[in-house]
Amino acid sequence: MIRLAFTIELRYEIAETPADFIFNIHAAKTPWQALVCESLTFSQEVVADVTTDPATTSRYLRVRAEPGPFRVCYGATVDIDPHSESRARLDETPVARIPPQVLPYLYPSRYCQSDRLSRLANREFGHLRSGYWRVLAIHDWVRNRTVFTSGSSDNRTGAMDTLVDQVGVCRDFAHLMIALCRALNIPARFVTGIDYGAPLAMGPPDFHAYVEVFLGTRWYLFDPTGISAPMGLVRIGTGRDAADVSFATLFGSMKSHAPRITIAAVDDAAAGFTLPRHSVEALSTYGERVFIPGSA
Amino acid sequence: MIRLAFTIELRYEIAETPADFIFNIHAAKTPWQALVCESLTFSQEVVADVTTDPATTSRYLRVRAEPGPFRVCYGATVDIDPHSESRARLDETPVARIPPQVLPYLYPSRYCQSDRLSRLANREFGHLRSGYWRVLAIHDWVRNRTVFTSGSSDNRTGAMDTLVDQVGVCRDFAHLMIALCRALNIPARFVTGIDYGAPLAMGPPDFHAYVEVFLGTRWYLFDPTGISAPMGLVRIGTGRDAADVSFATLFGSMKSHAPRITIAAVDDAAAGFTLPRHSVEALSTYGERVFIPGSA
Amino acid sequence: MIRLAFTIELRYEIAETPADFIFNIHAAKTPWQALVCESLTFSQEVVADVTTDPATTSRYLRVRAEPGPFRVCYGATVDIDPHSESRARLDETPVARIPPQVLPYLYPSRYCQSDRLSRLANREFGHLRSGYWRVLAIHDWVRNRTVFTSGSSDNRTGAMDTLVDQVGVCRDFAHLMIALCRALNIPARFVTGIDYGAPLAMGPPDFHAYVEVFLGTRWYLFDPTGISAPMGLVRIGTGRDAADVSFATLFGSMKSHAPRITIAAVDDAAAGFTLPRHSVEALSTYGERVFIPGSA
Amino acid sequence: MIRLAFTIELRYEIAETPADFIFNIHAAKTPWQALVCESLTFSQEVVADVTTDPATTSRYLRVRAEPGPFRVCYGATVDIDPHSESRARLDETPVARIPPQVLPYLYPSRYCQSDRLSRLANREFGHLRSGYWRVLAIHDWVRNRTVFTSGSSDNRTGAMDTLVDQVGVCRDFAHLMIALCRALNIPARFVTGIDYGAPLAMGPPDFHAYVEVFLGTRWYLFDPTGISAPMGLVRIGTGRDAADVSFATLFGSMKSHAPRITIAAVDDAAAGFTLPRHSVEALSTYGERVFIPGSA
Repeated sequence: MIRLAFTIELRYEIAETPADFIFNIHAAKTPWQALVCESLTFSQEVVADVTTDPATTSRYLRVRAEPGPFRVCYGATVDIDPHSESRARLDETPVARIPPQVLPYLYPSRYCQSDRLSRLANREFGHLRSGYWRVLAIHDWVRNRTVFTSGSSDNRTGAMDTLVDQVGVCRDFAHLMIALCRALNIPARFVTGIDYGAPLAMGPPDFHAYVEVFLGTRWYLFDPTGISAPMGLVRIGTGRDAADVSFATLFGSMKSHAPRITIAAVDDAAAGFTLPRHSVEALSTYGERVFIPGSA
Repeated sequence: MIRLAFTIELRYEIAETPADFIFNIHAAKTPWQALVCESLTFSQEVVADVTTDPATTSRYLRVRAEPGPFRVCYGATVDIDPHSESRARLDETPVARIPPQVLPYLYPSRYCQSDRLSRLANREFGHLRSGYWRVLAIHDWVRNRTVFTSGSSDNRTGAMDTLVDQVGVCRDFAHLMIALCRALNIPARFVTGIDYGAPLAMGPPDFHAYVEVFLGTRWYLFDPTGISAPMGLVRIGTGRDAADVSFATLFGSMKSHAPRITIAAVDDAAAGFTLPRHSVEALSTYGERVFIPGSA
Repeated sequence: MIRLAFTIELRYEIAETPADFIFNIHAAKTPWQALVCESLTFSQEVVADVTTDPATTSRYLRVRAEPGPFRVCYGATVDIDPHSESRARLDETPVARIPPQVLPYLYPSRYCQSDRLSRLANREFGHLRSGYWRVLAIHDWVRNRTVFTSGSSDNRTGAMDTLVDQVGVCRDFAHLMIALCRALNIPARFVTGIDYGAPLAMGPPDFHAYVEVFLGTRWYLFDPTGISAPMGLVRIGTGRDAADVSFATLFGSMKSHAPRITIAAVDDAAAGFTLPRHSVEALSTYGERVFIPGSA
Repeated sequence: MIRLAFTIELRYEIAETPADFIFNIHAAKTPWQALVCESLTFSQEVVADVTTDPATTSRYLRVRAEPGPFRVCYGATVDIDPHSESRARLDETPVARIPPQVLPYLYPSRYCQSDRLSRLANREFGHLRSGYWRVLAIHDWVRNRTVFTSGSSDNRTGAMDTLVDQVGVCRDFAHLMIALCRALNIPARFVTGIDYGAPLAMGPPDFHAYVEVFLGTRWYLFDPTGISAPMGLVRIGTGRDAADVSFATLFGSMKSHAPRITIAAVDDAAAGFTLPRHSVEALSTYGERVFIPGSA
């Protein structure tokens, strides 16, 4: 079991009129990520509304704030105990049997233009045997061909840009891997979170983005940046791509400051808590096994 | 009441190995579009699986077919009796009160890159009074600035291309209008269907694409091509943009023929059926009124 | 020596007002491509103005024509006797010694966005030894990864699209190869012409586009589509990319028909004329050796 | 007469191997911009090679430098005495009579995709009377619809992006104005320089980019950012767009620092030198009148 405690502090200066916010900063609750405790405070008196999208587990916080400084502090402690599976046992699901709720992740989205990549994906990966190892080959291909460089991309950057430019940040790695999977008819989606264990050289803790691929009967985790052990990824938002799970969508005129984030892991074997480490098994933290007619 | 009967015939030549299909050609069932009867036949013995996405009412048909010719014929008769509302009474919904299930239609998608258009949308429409008339101004702007030309775009074409090139087909008109609405924080989405009443000069009946905008407590119809009276639009698929509701997604090697489509309206006032006509009211055919806290 | 005779017929229906044309259909005159004879006729009485761009040898024909049908027929017989060089002797020219008149072909252009491709080009080709063989590796890479499909691209398609989509026609192959060369600081440019010897299966003769790369002290020919022996390429236009050497730039309202083109080779060994064939040597048909200070 | 003195200091840290540079920082020499004096110094012993492109007056400096710090200082004093013309007398030149050396500026280029903008340009400006005032309408349109924001674009940004995003820096304003002019068959090009008189609020002096449009028999200056009086623009590079006249093109591995620039104007009416000011006439600083057959 992994116990991670994290905090997120967001700061804004709102101009003349009230502003609306949709935040996606709450830790998700799944059978494999339990919420031990959480707190949410604001620097203004506000009415906060939190809704959970049942389809994705993403929790959206909506707030309206008055002109002036506005600070949001969220903190949570979560216990992560991923479902693990032998990689060799994980097959791709034939299109004919992909569950309906998984189908949307087969289609192209704002930043994952998989419709453009089918020739390329088939040329690079079409000859590989279907299953976990093929997805890992895509993961390695993206990781090996893309240079992680802070500030090298912006919110206009999509998978095609990253394919061409071969540079990006975590969201770009994720978008490219997702687009390539979908181009091969493998459902794939975008997850945001906070990662434990990033090298200090990468700077202070920050939001992270990674990938979930549907194999067998579940969604399995991949981090194509190679920065984090999937076991140390707190799940926050789940969507088709970054457009769905921005940590903050802002409506109104304001100035934003960079987020301040902390994360710590409990290292107490006696209590059953170990540090995140790379695993030889495939890990899943999303939900229950999806029933697929005809599968074992 | 409008009664429309339509048929869709799709033809493929499948190459060496079996191919999978996901079709989205079934008429949707909503409180305002009742299914009188429908039929579905295949030129091969196949196992067909139809699932309805409860969030959108889109009905997806999955089929696997063997090599050789493959023909799918679908036909349906629907009764359309739209909810109508005085345009003057329809307001935009403030972001803080947009229902959770409507929120996804606020975000950019594959073909509707609304994140790029906020400056432009605010310059053109930001000064207009919120509500139906502002959405109509967007509708008119798209219609007036875009030339309908068959074959002028392809499945790579997005709203930004249409904005620049000022030419397109129905899906391009729809994508641009949707992107502009979202850029102003007005939820908007993409609907496919068959339209009754297109001028003969436009060629044989074809799939059509149009727009739904969330105003007040419902989704209202707009056809920025100006081709059809919204009352004569059979609803098939509903999604964020064309990527979600392609009438046919093909998996495998095959040759496709152009769809053959027919549509007819019952004109029998005695029985209560009139022909579709343009309406001075806003029309909605999607679902029940959405509960919005604090709204009347 | 190769003797090729070709004809080009272009047909237009000009609408209400006179229209202007800039054609680039004349065979170029270079030390290696001699003009035996040529003819130019119009279906209207027009004033035709032909100017040669001394920097490129492109010959531009400007004509104004009246409303109604307008036909342009150009024909020429050329003798091609390429300068040939052993591939092994051809080195890339260091940036510091690239002649001034060659420098423009190092920069990105409309369809060859080489500025975007430097990481990719260096990853794929950066480790190869400088010289002819590296350029040939780029040529092979483009040829192997791109599928020739008529109608798969249009005049919006650039090198980045072709890189992603892996499909195109001759101009797309050329643009991608040019962009990759420039990304490695190898001057490269776009040549249009008529090619002798394309397989009949490709349909009737058409305009062709190919690539010229500056190596050693001259421009050498490459055809990344692999369709033609460079020896059988009549040179017409030379530019940075297709934007510079469109065979017809139209100003005014009109309808265009597809060009009609014929080409034939003289096969008369006694007279010294042989058919074009693939050569093991590198071929150059552009101009005289460029003086490079410090080179042998 | 305007006398301007400026200095440019460029600093690099070259990594392990020697690096090549192509600079375009020298003041151009034209009949309307005389070079009073200039200096060029390097922090290393280098062999510098300066060539002038006769077609554009751009002066390119090529240098190879050794690993370690490398500093280039260029300074010049120029006398600018623009040719001025009454705006009302300046007509567009019909395509049929555009001089051959001006034709390249009619075609699309890397950042000015005029081929995409013909419908839009004709809708916005097609009804205006040909001539200076139409070009000024384009200038005003770009200026009014685009927000100047430092850091809002990068070297991937082209005219279509600026059209959509409505934000940019001087080069983006210039690219959009150029693309719109070319879309209307008005030759237009990109000029770099140092501008005198930018408001202090815009930060320290920097390179500037502006536009030249061919009207009547000459190239006339426009600054669509509205920052500078055209009279106060020192001409450095002239090209199709920014791809041709980058102030520094770097070959090799190195770190760059921001340029340091100073500019001052001589204010000495007795000696005949006045400060730059906005003029009611159209100004040209490029070259001699171009002979156009049939023009007065």
